[in-house]
Amino acid sequence: MSNAVEQILANYAGENPGVIGNLRRLLSTGTLAGTGKLVILPVDQGFEHGPARSFAPNPKGYDPDYHASLALEAGCNAYAAPLGFIEAVAHKYAGKLPFILKVNNSDSLGGPDEPCSALTASVEDALRLGCSAIGYTIYPGSGLRNEQYETIRALIQDARSVGLPTVLWSYPRGAGISKNGETALDVVAYAAHIACQLGAHIVKVKPPTDFIEQKEAQKPYENVPKATLAERVQHVVQSAFNGKRIVIFSGGAAKGANELLEELRQIAKGGGNGSIMGRNAFQRSPAEGAKLLRDAMEIFKNA
Amino acid sequence: MSNAVEQILANYAGENPGVIGNLRRLLSTGTLAGTGKLVILPVDQGFEHGPARSFAPNPKGYDPDYHASLALEAGCNAYAAPLGFIEAVAHKYAGKLPFILKVNNSDSLGGPDEPCSALTASVEDALRLGCSAIGYTIYPGSGLRNEQYETIRALIQDARSVGLPTVLWSYPRGAGISKNGETALDVVAYAAHIACQLGAHIVKVKPPTDFIEQKEAQKPYENVPKATLAERVQHVVQSAFNGKRIVIFSGGAAKGANELLEELRQIAKGGGNGSIMGRNAFQRSPAEGAKLLRDAMEIFKNA
Amino acid sequence: MSNAVEQILANYAGENPGVIGNLRRLLSTGTLAGTGKLVILPVDQGFEHGPARSFAPNPKGYDPDYHASLALEAGCNAYAAPLGFIEAVAHKYAGKLPFILKVNNSDSLGGPDEPCSALTASVEDALRLGCSAIGYTIYPGSGLRNEQYETIRALIQDARSVGLPTVLWSYPRGAGISKNGETALDVVAYAAHIACQLGAHIVKVKPPTDFIEQKEAQKPYENVPKATLAERVQHVVQSAFNGKRIVIFSGGAAKGANELLEELRQIAKGGGNGSIMGRNAFQRSPAEGAKLLRDAMEIFKNA
Amino acid sequence: MSNAVEQILANYAGENPGVIGNLRRLLSTGTLAGTGKLVILPVDQGFEHGPARSFAPNPKGYDPDYHASLALEAGCNAYAAPLGFIEAVAHKYAGKLPFILKVNNSDSLGGPDEPCSALTASVEDALRLGCSAIGYTIYPGSGLRNEQYETIRALIQDARSVGLPTVLWSYPRGAGISKNGETALDVVAYAAHIACQLGAHIVKVKPPTDFIEQKEAQKPYENVPKATLAERVQHVVQSAFNGKRIVIFSGGAAKGANELLEELRQIAKGGGNGSIMGRNAFQRSPAEGAKLLRDAMEIFKNA
Amino acid sequence: MSNAVEQILANYAGENPGVIGNLRRLLSTGTLAGTGKLVILPVDQGFEHGPARSFAPNPKGYDPDYHASLALEAGCNAYAAPLGFIEAVAHKYAGKLPFILKVNNSDSLGGPDEPCSALTASVEDALRLGCSAIGYTIYPGSGLRNEQYETIRALIQDARSVGLPTVLWSYPRGAGISKNGETALDVVAYAAHIACQLGAHIVKVKPPTDFIEQKEAQKPYENVPKATLAERVQHVVQSAFNGKRIVIFSGGAAKGANELLEELRQIAKGGGNGSIMGRNAFQRSPAEGAKLLRDAMEIFKNA
Repeated sequence: MSNAVEQILANYAGENPGVIGNLRRLLSTGTLAGTGKLVILPVDQGFEHGPARSFAPNPKGYDPDYHASLALEAGCNAYAAPLGFIEAVAHKYAGKLPFILKVNNSDSLGGPDEPCSALTASVEDALRLGCSAIGYTIYPGSGLRNEQYETIRALIQDARSVGLPTVLWSYPRGAGISKNGETALDVVAYAAHIACQLGAHIVKVKPPTDFIEQKEAQKPYENVPKATLAERVQHVVQSAFNGKRIVIFSGGAAKGANELLEELRQIAKGGGNGSIMGRNAFQRSPAEGAKLLRDAMEIFKNA
Repeated sequence: MSNAVEQILANYAGENPGVIGNLRRLLSTGTLAGTGKLVILPVDQGFEHGPARSFAPNPKGYDPDYHASLALEAGCNAYAAPLGFIEAVAHKYAGKLPFILKVNNSDSLGGPDEPCSALTASVEDALRLGCSAIGYTIYPGSGLRNEQYETIRALIQDARSVGLPTVLWSYPRGAGISKNGETALDVVAYAAHIACQLGAHIVKVKPPTDFIEQKEAQKPYENVPKATLAERVQHVVQSAFNGKRIVIFSGGAAKGANELLEELRQIAKGGGNGSIMGRNAFQRSPAEGAKLLRDAMEIFKNA
Repeated sequence: MSNAVEQILANYAGENPGVIGNLRRLLSTGTLAGTGKLVILPVDQGFEHGPARSFAPNPKGYDPDYHASLALEAGCNAYAAPLGFIEAVAHKYAGKLPFILKVNNSDSLGGPDEPCSALTASVEDALRLGCSAIGYTIYPGSGLRNEQYETIRALIQDARSVGLPTVLWSYPRGAGISKNGETALDVVAYAAHIACQLGAHIVKVKPPTDFIEQKEAQKPYENVPKATLAERVQHVVQSAFNGKRIVIFSGGAAKGANELLEELRQIAKGGGNGSIMGRNAFQRSPAEGAKLLRDAMEIFKNA
Repeated sequence: MSNAVEQILANYAGENPGVIGNLRRLLSTGTLAGTGKLVILPVDQGFEHGPARSFAPNPKGYDPDYHASLALEAGCNAYAAPLGFIEAVAHKYAGKLPFILKVNNSDSLGGPDEPCSALTASVEDALRLGCSAIGYTIYPGSGLRNEQYETIRALIQDARSVGLPTVLWSYPRGAGISKNGETALDVVAYAAHIACQLGAHIVKVKPPTDFIEQKEAQKPYENVPKATLAERVQHVVQSAFNGKRIVIFSGGAAKGANELLEELRQIAKGGGNGSIMGRNAFQRSPAEGAKLLRDAMEIFKNA
Repeated sequence: MSNAVEQILANYAGENPGVIGNLRRLLSTGTLAGTGKLVILPVDQGFEHGPARSFAPNPKGYDPDYHASLALEAGCNAYAAPLGFIEAVAHKYAGKLPFILKVNNSDSLGGPDEPCSALTASVEDALRLGCSAIGYTIYPGSGLRNEQYETIRALIQDARSVGLPTVLWSYPRGAGISKNGETALDVVAYAAHIACQLGAHIVKVKPPTDFIEQKEAQKPYENVPKATLAERVQHVVQSAFNGKRIVIFSGGAAKGANELLEELRQIAKGGGNGSIMGRNAFQRSPAEGAKLLRDAMEIFKNA
């Protein structure tokens, strides 16, 4: 067995073998199997931003089969999506490609005053569809924070009882946080820490900038190295229980391949466990998208 | 994806993707991955016959780690065992080696008057331990037949709802069946058919002899070719929904390697989906046991 | 058995033996075992204030193992933390170091308009993780007071039914309370009394100042001795059912060791049952932190 | 922490921290704390054989306080008893002396035709009373075997979910087993193995004789060393998952101190994890009973 | 408060205040209030033996009001009866006369082969009717023993959770017990012990004879004083947790007043907590019945 994987799993001692097994499955699938690193393809942008904004750049993306096929063929560790997209492909890919069922989602047509996604799938759905984990988005900073923390607490408990780990998208957002603050180093590190404290098995955050948002955090951050993304990633990883929880970083908005790969190199250098990149993959042509995913894996493989 | 596997899974259309995914996992693991064939290591003999009768020939077998390790290293599709043996290794092997949790078991110290195993594990245990299927033994012919059929009906339903397929050990036994009759062709074929009708996803029966047990079956079997084991296996496979359900054959009591391998060749020739062999593997020395399993896989691989 | 402990427990007659047993365990662990006094290490600041603000002064604190190890080695009665921090160490320390699972938590990125922590763990979690008590924060004075009182009422009931006592953090806060008022003698005494009335087994409040916040309380407090912290602690203890409920005091923001130890001497002199000090312990170097905890215990031991 | 204890607990990886914590508590209490060995005082004979047959030799034993006090003062790891005896002392000893609540019991006034104890306490009782484990008796060989296996399966699952391990008394008995057979080596080893397969965390069996009961077991036992009790204990320990489950041996009927201590030396030499001795302790005078328990601990301490 | 009552209640520490409160109510009502002794009027004979066999000697007994009135006016501690009799009077007497709702009953028209009463009332009924306790009959020795023990275990748990103590009628009966054996000293003492182990708060047994039923008990009883009823009662009380559970004795079949009162004197002398006498009271004329009850109280008052 892979030492890298078993060392990571040792940090989850106390979890039942079902949860451990699914984490091991995620870490033992695809090109990065056994390295302790993950590249995951997430496709919830259709739900979050609308279909054309998401799929017009590469219209094959309208088809749910495209993404599962892309994830499998490019060698991703897993594919994450909302209920409908998973349902459309599960019978064909279950048992080959690990799914992360995104159980809450938001759309950009409107909603509650405070940031809060809707529950759109269940733990039962995850089992029925042969998924290896559930995913959930929290918005620390939201006026509806309490509702979200309480919901995910119950979901994590239910998912664990049936052997499913939980991936937490932790995206600070709310009245008290500036736009720049959403990716500020103090805020991203805080978001990662909250996700770990809530019991997340895998934490997903955005790559942090060197901005410090909170006044009270200015002083403590004076001596935290933060000039390079690698240094900032290192601090986020440290904030995630000193690296004892898996932390992956989102790719964010579509960007140039070189820029993106450099970002990944920094994430890898800083000790991040991997990348979860959607638009940068599926908004490119099939060949380019797959190549980018493979290039990303190459970076983490050699980290 | 493997054509052989997908052709088999097409016979299970209508099952949910969780069940399909776990069947695909069983068919996509180990040396026989993608061939549509299975070699499974079952170790419930300690429970059924007592520890020394099971493990004295190769005392490493007293240790639950030995069997999981043997199954993994020899390249088996799965490892089947009672609760305790799975619990002892699950944290280490879950996500790598598919487990089949044997949820009922019997011992030879005594019990009810009619053949009937005790429920010794649950569907919840299977999820908690990261298993890919549950296994259950029915004794068609037992005076407690109805209790067993009704129990397995409920278990299959529960297991399905959480994405787990069911493997049915179908072993005719009871006051109305002679000792020879337990492996008679008509009885084994009947046992396979009953298991399929009960909703089993995978059926396990014993290799049939050319004996015909039931008087009423004598005439219909006059024209069924049954001279060779391959022919008889073919009939059993036919009886399992014309080959639309996976049928595997037990190895039975420990025997010479040549004899066993010839038996497997016949099973493969007759269209059997594989073999589930315990004592023949774990009662040999580690090297011989692993070699036998690998030889068995070689036979099915080339079938 | 310790007279001091049994005298305290006599005030909890009517509770079931499970609750009594866990209280006895808290009072029978560590350096202060048998004295009826408690020094508890709480580490929820990562969640409440963010990781760097909490752990940058002593970066070992990013690691959940550090705190459990510090609590055990310094001889604390118990270690209190949110779900994630407990989950990360429970398998290693359960059965040796009593845990208090903090089941609600707040962060400083934003939240509801009125002070109200989110439920972030459950009584089931406490049992699964081998905890000896649950902890909960109420904010008397909050516009969401009723929700909090009703939630804790149900939690205390559930926790008791499985043998777990409840520690209540009672921190007055809200539109009608001035900043100074939050630690005013009348307000802190009131907060302790409310916690007792809600059924708390152990009450945690802040050391009170000699400020009197409520106009209606000015007159009754004229004759309450309040010049020294010891006198004020004595009044708080009196307000906690005449000393029949265990009252411990928080250490508050990090401060000089001498200042802190003098505060503890006053608390001990006033009859407080102990101290729950986090930042003052874990924001120092390991050696200094452990020394401070041990010095604190020395004070209570000789009280 | 104790290496001996942590090595044992490593065999229970996959269990939740609550279960691990209670096992650690049992192994970290009393004179044998940290040695990996256990001496437990069980007092269910009043229920099983009647009060005078149990307590007339030392009438102090009629009083439930006597036994808890004896267990605590002699330095036992735990005290095991039926509901009533635990209820009578739990408020006084919970949190100091680990209790094992015996949740089924039989009496000798009559009952069902086949050996089967009655459920006399619940997992909820165990939590309410502050117990560290539940205990249950199975009678392999009984015609009511299935009912017992199914009941304990459910109880173990429930107990685990609230952090409680299970101790299984495994006493073969039934129409197919001769009186001598009940303590035959093959039968006792089998009983230990069944208990492990059912998911027991701690197995209690009787010291085996060199008799072999089952015809089919004669041959496999030819080469199993069995001349001394130590050799036979070694085989039972091997049958308990190669020593990966804790196995303790009952003291049986009251006997001479020298005879008993020699038996314990053999158990210790054979690798047994300890002894659970009732009548030999409480049917002696207080001083002699305590001395015998201490002598027993001395033997295991030096093993 | 009464020392005698509080000394008894101290043996029930660990019970919740609701249960304690109802026990205190039973011990603080009527002529014997505060003495620690009880005389209870039970009227279930109509159900158990038929109305005429029960009430023809004093036809006022057909009327449920008669018994409640008798119990109240004679100064009994409580009145015990089946559902219907309690329902008929509860509105009038609840709050004045403590009721013990007998929740199972048998009739003499026929029933199961083995002794086993039917559940005829519920814990909910007891609350609805303002009762202070529930009562239940077990038949140790019955082939349906397990069903009865398991039922009462659940009932005691439910009753406790709503603050109700349980009175257990423990009447050995079954194929293995001779007619004389049902009141043999060893059997009655055993029955009392079993009831205590099952968690009964108050135990009701029959006055024992000096007969010893069980062969294995002959020797242990050689040195137990048993010549007088007082001595035998003393042994039964000892068998009931050394007097730490309340034991009351039934009056049995109607008999002469002198004979009965002498029996009560012996019970009082032996340390029995009182008497529960039905037929001897209600089958006499109102004046005689009340006198007998008062005479009985006088005996216990002066004990």
